[in-house]
Amino acid sequence: MISSEFTQGLLAQGRDTKILMVVVDGLGGLPDPRTGRSELDTAQLPNLDALAAAGSCGLISPLGPGFTPGSGPAHLSLFGYDPWKHQIGRGALSAMGLGLEFSAGDVAARLNFCTVDSQGRVTDRRAGRIPTEKCQQLCAKLAAIHIPGIEVSIAAEMEYRAAVVFRGEGLEDEVGDSDPQVTGVPPHALEARGKGSARMVQVANTFLDQARQLLAGEEPANMVLIRGFGRYPVLPQMAEVYGLRALAVAGYPMYRGVASAVGMQTVATDWHLDQELAALRSRWADCDFAYLHVKKTDSAGEDGNFDLKVKLLEEVDQYVPRFLELNPEVFILTGDHSTPSIMRSHSWHPVPLVIRSPVAMPDGLPGFSERHCRVGSLGQLPSTAVMALALAHARRLEKFGA
Amino acid sequence: MISSEFTQGLLAQGRDTKILMVVVDGLGGLPDPRTGRSELDTAQLPNLDALAAAGSCGLISPLGPGFTPGSGPAHLSLFGYDPWKHQIGRGALSAMGLGLEFSAGDVAARLNFCTVDSQGRVTDRRAGRIPTEKCQQLCAKLAAIHIPGIEVSIAAEMEYRAAVVFRGEGLEDEVGDSDPQVTGVPPHALEARGKGSARMVQVANTFLDQARQLLAGEEPANMVLIRGFGRYPVLPQMAEVYGLRALAVAGYPMYRGVASAVGMQTVATDWHLDQELAALRSRWADCDFAYLHVKKTDSAGEDGNFDLKVKLLEEVDQYVPRFLELNPEVFILTGDHSTPSIMRSHSWHPVPLVIRSPVAMPDGLPGFSERHCRVGSLGQLPSTAVMALALAHARRLEKFGA
Repeated sequence: MISSEFTQGLLAQGRDTKILMVVVDGLGGLPDPRTGRSELDTAQLPNLDALAAAGSCGLISPLGPGFTPGSGPAHLSLFGYDPWKHQIGRGALSAMGLGLEFSAGDVAARLNFCTVDSQGRVTDRRAGRIPTEKCQQLCAKLAAIHIPGIEVSIAAEMEYRAAVVFRGEGLEDEVGDSDPQVTGVPPHALEARGKGSARMVQVANTFLDQARQLLAGEEPANMVLIRGFGRYPVLPQMAEVYGLRALAVAGYPMYRGVASAVGMQTVATDWHLDQELAALRSRWADCDFAYLHVKKTDSAGEDGNFDLKVKLLEEVDQYVPRFLELNPEVFILTGDHSTPSIMRSHSWHPVPLVIRSPVAMPDGLPGFSERHCRVGSLGQLPSTAVMALALAHARRLEKFGA
Repeated sequence: MISSEFTQGLLAQGRDTKILMVVVDGLGGLPDPRTGRSELDTAQLPNLDALAAAGSCGLISPLGPGFTPGSGPAHLSLFGYDPWKHQIGRGALSAMGLGLEFSAGDVAARLNFCTVDSQGRVTDRRAGRIPTEKCQQLCAKLAAIHIPGIEVSIAAEMEYRAAVVFRGEGLEDEVGDSDPQVTGVPPHALEARGKGSARMVQVANTFLDQARQLLAGEEPANMVLIRGFGRYPVLPQMAEVYGLRALAVAGYPMYRGVASAVGMQTVATDWHLDQELAALRSRWADCDFAYLHVKKTDSAGEDGNFDLKVKLLEEVDQYVPRFLELNPEVFILTGDHSTPSIMRSHSWHPVPLVIRSPVAMPDGLPGFSERHCRVGSLGQLPSTAVMALALAHARRLEKFGA
């Protein structure tokens, strides 16, 4: 199959139709062994069930069978970009989402405030999940770091997380993480994995040395781990590729980051659904395509909290009529990937998808879940196909060939 | 998936088995909002329903999710050729279908007889849909056109449509249309879109100047619009790729054109089903594979005539036993694309497919329609996969690997 992102550029045509895509993070799940029912099967979802009857359903796969995506590739895929070809470091996504100055040639990375003991061994990789305000104070402290020839920008993300951007000559991003992923050992020494990355390692080591000194008196966040080095990504922009004025409404910075990378306008908002909906409403008139991100379902899945995920899915369901009140020609609800609570992690399992439009085949399914969607009329398809379907249902794709 | 056209070339083996593929143009549809039932769901189709019980069913997509094909790409895909890779200008298809002399290096284009006012503005892009006989007379008149160094061949198609072939040195086909697509404006000036196409523009402009003079006294068809410039396509031939002596039975020239391009023998026939069937019978003994095209279902869909499309589907159903009387080892009935009456156009929606053979999994489906076929044993597959299945069911594909 031809890569949709190029074909669509040739075929996209302007129309006065709007597309709303709600992405429920980690939407798909697996059955609780006690009941044999997945999170979606367990939840009471009257509005989503009605959509599964009136709309077209299917299952989408962000990377193909068996491959589990991170949030970046999963979203790129949903936005129609081949996630194997367009790889973005997570640090780069965070930097963009936080609004750090970041452009071609810069390298970003993620920082985790952590706790180390007197021997330099990591005892808590998240420094007791310090509050975001504390994180902001510590980032202000790290602003004193000075590296000759390099501009350093730092910003706090959520809790113990922050991001850093390095700007200067000769920086490459093929550098391994210092985060050892386990406690009781010192951070990894930074490793240049590409021949051009020695300078980046040197700069980052200087950064870490100064950070250690600046944080020495702090408790519990007396050190940082650095990971996810990534250069500023150069991606085709949605306006060119799809002819869409695209808007991203996402409470969590990382998702605004990936949306920015493909040229979406972003709205800073809290990640509560009512605030996201308010932000969407305020900008709805000025966009052709809006992506709205629901974060908490994924967090519940990662925490292994099946019941909470069920409850959060029911909350999303209650918002569906309010989304539809905006009257989009095309309404899509899906997920970036599955996060089965029983796995406590992202997974490769395909993700339910529903599309409602005046030209959608009404599948008449009895409910919206993994097992129902697998017999939907959209079949099983790659997540990269969703944007072409969105444009088609919005009548924004011209016929190919005579 | 590997491109079937290459794989099959290596694996195709001779057998004394016959394949009949009936292509019902625009077969797939969408529900009438008043009843919730599609054209196929509404029609009484006892013979097709029996096939859906005894044969294997699925849904096929000519271009992948969301992309709507024209007739050319949709048919190439069904014939197993990647439609994104093999692009044929519509003029080229028309020229081949009309039996014009047309070979490598020539450029064809479509002509529409039209009406222009005294200022040269197009007032009717179809010249009141003049009858085909009138079109033939006007084409005879245009035979007087003389362009130094260029051979010009012209033939009438249906109603106001004709095709022209230009033969000479240095002709390329990257030329825009003169058809402005709207009335009240003059035709577009021809534009060379590739650097090698300046000569073609010059030749075509000479052609249009002489046509204007020759048609000046005509009413209403006093000018031609030219569009769809296309060189003779060089495509792998079915005999080499599949080892098949292939026959095309199609009343409408364009479909004979695409069939010729892949090396099928063609039979000129009217497009009434009884005449197509008679033509098929007369040549059945001498072919291994026959493609029979049913045109009117698509026209009814494009006219938004839901009830007529239902009636025409019922007519096709009545012919099924007569097709089966020919006793093909493999009988396939499908469509090139969907044409939902409620959309009045081709669409991207996947198309029902049924394959009957002694080695087909009998799906036991209760009927032949979009919603039934989506749970058939063939699943959802690209249209390019159909020829491999046809050969397999005809036992004409060797095992791959030891």
